[in-house]
Amino acid sequence: MAFNLKCAVGASVFWPPADRVVSTGYKPAITEKDLFKSIGKVKEVEGVELFYPYDFKDVKTIRIVLNEIGMKVCAVGAGIFSEPKWQYGSVTSYDEKIRKEAMDICKESINAAAELGAKIFTFWPAHDGYDYYFQTDYKRKWYLIVESLRELAAINKEINIGIEYKAKEPRTHQIISSAAKALLISEETEMDNVGVIMDIGHSFICHENPAEEAVYLFNKNRLFHLHQNDNYADWDFDMMPASVHFWENIELFYWLYKLNYNGWINFDICPFREDAVKASELSIKNIKKIVNFVKKIDSSLYKKAIDNNNALINQEYIWDLLFKN
Amino acid sequence: MAFNLKCAVGASVFWPPADRVVSTGYKPAITEKDLFKSIGKVKEVEGVELFYPYDFKDVKTIRIVLNEIGMKVCAVGAGIFSEPKWQYGSVTSYDEKIRKEAMDICKESINAAAELGAKIFTFWPAHDGYDYYFQTDYKRKWYLIVESLRELAAINKEINIGIEYKAKEPRTHQIISSAAKALLISEETEMDNVGVIMDIGHSFICHENPAEEAVYLFNKNRLFHLHQNDNYADWDFDMMPASVHFWENIELFYWLYKLNYNGWINFDICPFREDAVKASELSIKNIKKIVNFVKKIDSSLYKKAIDNNNALINQEYIWDLLFKN
Amino acid sequence: MAFNLKCAVGASVFWPPADRVVSTGYKPAITEKDLFKSIGKVKEVEGVELFYPYDFKDVKTIRIVLNEIGMKVCAVGAGIFSEPKWQYGSVTSYDEKIRKEAMDICKESINAAAELGAKIFTFWPAHDGYDYYFQTDYKRKWYLIVESLRELAAINKEINIGIEYKAKEPRTHQIISSAAKALLISEETEMDNVGVIMDIGHSFICHENPAEEAVYLFNKNRLFHLHQNDNYADWDFDMMPASVHFWENIELFYWLYKLNYNGWINFDICPFREDAVKASELSIKNIKKIVNFVKKIDSSLYKKAIDNNNALINQEYIWDLLFKN
Amino acid sequence: MAFNLKCAVGASVFWPPADRVVSTGYKPAITEKDLFKSIGKVKEVEGVELFYPYDFKDVKTIRIVLNEIGMKVCAVGAGIFSEPKWQYGSVTSYDEKIRKEAMDICKESINAAAELGAKIFTFWPAHDGYDYYFQTDYKRKWYLIVESLRELAAINKEINIGIEYKAKEPRTHQIISSAAKALLISEETEMDNVGVIMDIGHSFICHENPAEEAVYLFNKNRLFHLHQNDNYADWDFDMMPASVHFWENIELFYWLYKLNYNGWINFDICPFREDAVKASELSIKNIKKIVNFVKKIDSSLYKKAIDNNNALINQEYIWDLLFKN
Repeated sequence: MAFNLKCAVGASVFWPPADRVVSTGYKPAITEKDLFKSIGKVKEVEGVELFYPYDFKDVKTIRIVLNEIGMKVCAVGAGIFSEPKWQYGSVTSYDEKIRKEAMDICKESINAAAELGAKIFTFWPAHDGYDYYFQTDYKRKWYLIVESLRELAAINKEINIGIEYKAKEPRTHQIISSAAKALLISEETEMDNVGVIMDIGHSFICHENPAEEAVYLFNKNRLFHLHQNDNYADWDFDMMPASVHFWENIELFYWLYKLNYNGWINFDICPFREDAVKASELSIKNIKKIVNFVKKIDSSLYKKAIDNNNALINQEYIWDLLFKN
Repeated sequence: MAFNLKCAVGASVFWPPADRVVSTGYKPAITEKDLFKSIGKVKEVEGVELFYPYDFKDVKTIRIVLNEIGMKVCAVGAGIFSEPKWQYGSVTSYDEKIRKEAMDICKESINAAAELGAKIFTFWPAHDGYDYYFQTDYKRKWYLIVESLRELAAINKEINIGIEYKAKEPRTHQIISSAAKALLISEETEMDNVGVIMDIGHSFICHENPAEEAVYLFNKNRLFHLHQNDNYADWDFDMMPASVHFWENIELFYWLYKLNYNGWINFDICPFREDAVKASELSIKNIKKIVNFVKKIDSSLYKKAIDNNNALINQEYIWDLLFKN
Repeated sequence: MAFNLKCAVGASVFWPPADRVVSTGYKPAITEKDLFKSIGKVKEVEGVELFYPYDFKDVKTIRIVLNEIGMKVCAVGAGIFSEPKWQYGSVTSYDEKIRKEAMDICKESINAAAELGAKIFTFWPAHDGYDYYFQTDYKRKWYLIVESLRELAAINKEINIGIEYKAKEPRTHQIISSAAKALLISEETEMDNVGVIMDIGHSFICHENPAEEAVYLFNKNRLFHLHQNDNYADWDFDMMPASVHFWENIELFYWLYKLNYNGWINFDICPFREDAVKASELSIKNIKKIVNFVKKIDSSLYKKAIDNNNALINQEYIWDLLFKN
Repeated sequence: MAFNLKCAVGASVFWPPADRVVSTGYKPAITEKDLFKSIGKVKEVEGVELFYPYDFKDVKTIRIVLNEIGMKVCAVGAGIFSEPKWQYGSVTSYDEKIRKEAMDICKESINAAAELGAKIFTFWPAHDGYDYYFQTDYKRKWYLIVESLRELAAINKEINIGIEYKAKEPRTHQIISSAAKALLISEETEMDNVGVIMDIGHSFICHENPAEEAVYLFNKNRLFHLHQNDNYADWDFDMMPASVHFWENIELFYWLYKLNYNGWINFDICPFREDAVKASELSIKNIKKIVNFVKKIDSSLYKKAIDNNNALINQEYIWDLLFKN
């Protein structure tokens, strides 16, 4: 089965963005109804990624809304981060009540995913980490995260539990900080349906080369889902994909194409100062250019160069191809 | 005149902190009255840094409030960042109406500083920068910032205009990103009362060694004010000072002490998950330990080592002193 | 069994250091004999880490030399990096001749380790990586490294194969770049005697918190050996340990102490401009201060703080303890 | 006068590269004669940058060599870094003998530049910095560097003294670490012929956006010369230009073109594992593609976008232009 760009957007892209400086938001408030109307306008998008209960409260209602705009659901994530109660962690909280509440939301999200026809549950343990040195029992945190994932994976083996790793924000340090750690932890659960969501922006933040990481995650059958956005490798600014990292995206999509990655790509940007519909459309349009471009690469030429360790051949070949395409 | 730790806190430390993830805030809302009551409780603090009109609306009222808690004002800053109207810049906005509004708030802040007995106007041009490549006329932005500073400096030559440089946040790139740029721009105004506020956390973010930067700023008579906080050199997490960077703070305070820096030190942390009063007190307590420590350093020994380029002598001397103090 | 600082030095510390700029070396040439005489002078050191065939050519001769200076061997590493023939990789070379030569040196080093009473084989695949994008078949490289390690591990199950991970230098990217990747690859070999050498400097370069990584490596029984040195988290300058990262080392040794880590610590600095004997001694002296310090930490107090997610308690406790010690 | 790509190569590109790991060099030794023969083979190159006395010992001889290969000299630099005697600094050395020797070599290099028809003296104070905290009298170092530059600038006002700033290597910290510092120091000399050499790779290392820095250096009449190479923003690997940073180079050359920069561009790569002639040619060929590309950008469209702070317009325009060119 051939690689095909299957595009989704996150509902969160369309909520008014805020940050520490403009905490009341860069854009006017929007109703849930208008939000999904906006999503419906984005060209080339087939699916949406939703966080429960932030983007929807019940399956029945959201199903109607999505039908109206003709969207599938690519993934459902657990809303275990936006309220202050999660500030010391969700499924790794030492407060049993908080931990149970987090697990319950995860379970409901997994069930919602199944009911909505999504194959992916997005697990982003935002506050499960630490800020200061001398603040953490690292062993206990690791144990709790593995146990939680094992438990979640058993709920519905048809739903893939995707760990969205991230090095920082909102904590200065998150437990599952890199692709390699996400894979380690996936394997430690001994469950086939625990794997990794690569958010390309998160990958840059922890100084990975996304192509390299994607290849081994894929080969371990644990590359479940992709989020696309970009930044300057320092902070998760969720900019339009490839607006900073150009070659890295070309190499990434070359390998996704060669490996026949057949999952979704969720365009998960945060357009603080830009129109969300336009920015989403431009993001997809630009990545389509990259996908079309990598399909022109002659794999036998490419392979010959890499089999010879030769850096110059492909540097010349790719540039020549780009500037005459 | 000898170096003395003159401590202030920012009023902003005591407002409920928020970020992109928990935009409604990590702590309950607080009234202005309760906020200043909290500030009044912090031990060892003589002054407060205020942003107009965020922390106070008129001079008369705030003067009463401050008298009640027995606090001086070390600096007044311009509130030109928290509303979405500033998102494309304040004094460098291309929208003349926005630009004028920003300049007006700056002028009112300068006047308020004078009336409240503060010597420093804090100029933090938060949104005056850019996010994407191909988005900016760099020459025009530089010109506008210099012209604005020149104009502000002329309002009241008794008030020092302190540029709080910062590399990023809320924009991915801010115009005045480093100590050297802040000094360049200060000198370009040809006004003696334009200089630099070193926020130690900002200094780490742009990979400076604060001691080194403080020395040349001081020697140019442009080191006007200090903000103290810490981070992991990637993002402005505004943690407690020296909780990450220990030696850097010891070297910084050694030189502040030797140079007889006699300005304020504003403890400008952002205690997302910590009690603001306790975190402020601990910040001051820990920095006092450092100040007491550097006073024990024998300058003639220290000087002998640095005059000989010898790295080992002071590495041994400082460690020995620390572990037997 | 209690934690005890068991100190070694690398023979490489005592060779004249060179870099790209001063490629002929910062110090005069030294004979092998004088080198080991220097090592013999370093106080508090019980062992030495050797690279075969760079530091010794045959077991019999080196045994005599080491007896003379009264040193044990903590680890033997494979010299598969200093000659230009290795520039495209050693055990992952696509040139079968090079690959075999690399494997042979590894095998001889493992045998030498056994004969010399060392428990650790140091595996540092320096050139096994890439420089440019579009230069590498990531899957093939990963496969080759795992296969090589499996083969090496089978030679002598009494010898622990320690992967010294490193993100960069001499390549811009090395395959085994982080602690998590080193552990992943160790586990993939399905051999109990493949594990990790944490070089603390390498850990900083890939933006790890060494304490956090050491804990999970230890809990997986794969923390085989430690190298101590420091840098500014950008490049492997191999400076004296804790000269930059102070708190990080305190937290690291706290956990090594609590976990009863009983391996060696090899002081593996590169004193470009400093006397190698003096710099080694000072490195050990300073780390001893840290070890003595962490032994004073009341674990029940420490634990109570971390069980409550509270950042302030230990920040205050550790500072108080340090400044009255 | 219109912008024209005037290409040079550094002679150092063609010497066998070495680093800390392969200190004997990645390539066989080469004679001076063969080196210049290699340079003569590089297509599209009009000039060469030379370091005295590393690349030539006397003007008369090198003039003959250069005539034979038909090369001009774009710049002459001072060879004050490759011998161990410089390890604590050159013109800022506290050893008067070393300092004088460094100044003498600088003076001879300036004279050689004049005799060879070059307009630029390359000043790269490699070891003038520090490694450890507590090792440096920052004020004294700053003073010495300014005084030295003032003295050198007075020798021949027709020769531009170009400061090649760099944040690190061979020291962990160099005094003139950024474009802004290089400009500050240039202005402090009060000499019009002291200015800045932007090495694009060095610019990335200190996290600058080269376009932004080039614009204000140019507007201050202090952008004297450019070096082209690339890296991953962590270490000066001197890779082929734009092989990592693509958009950054497009924006840089857009502004160089608009500003009519008419200096040289020296392709100053370090091809550790690549053929020097081929890598130089490919570097130039790729940058030519970029130059041709930026000439197609409609400045009135570009300007309209940046005058409106709009990030999307140029992101779309530039991508559309690139993928149909």
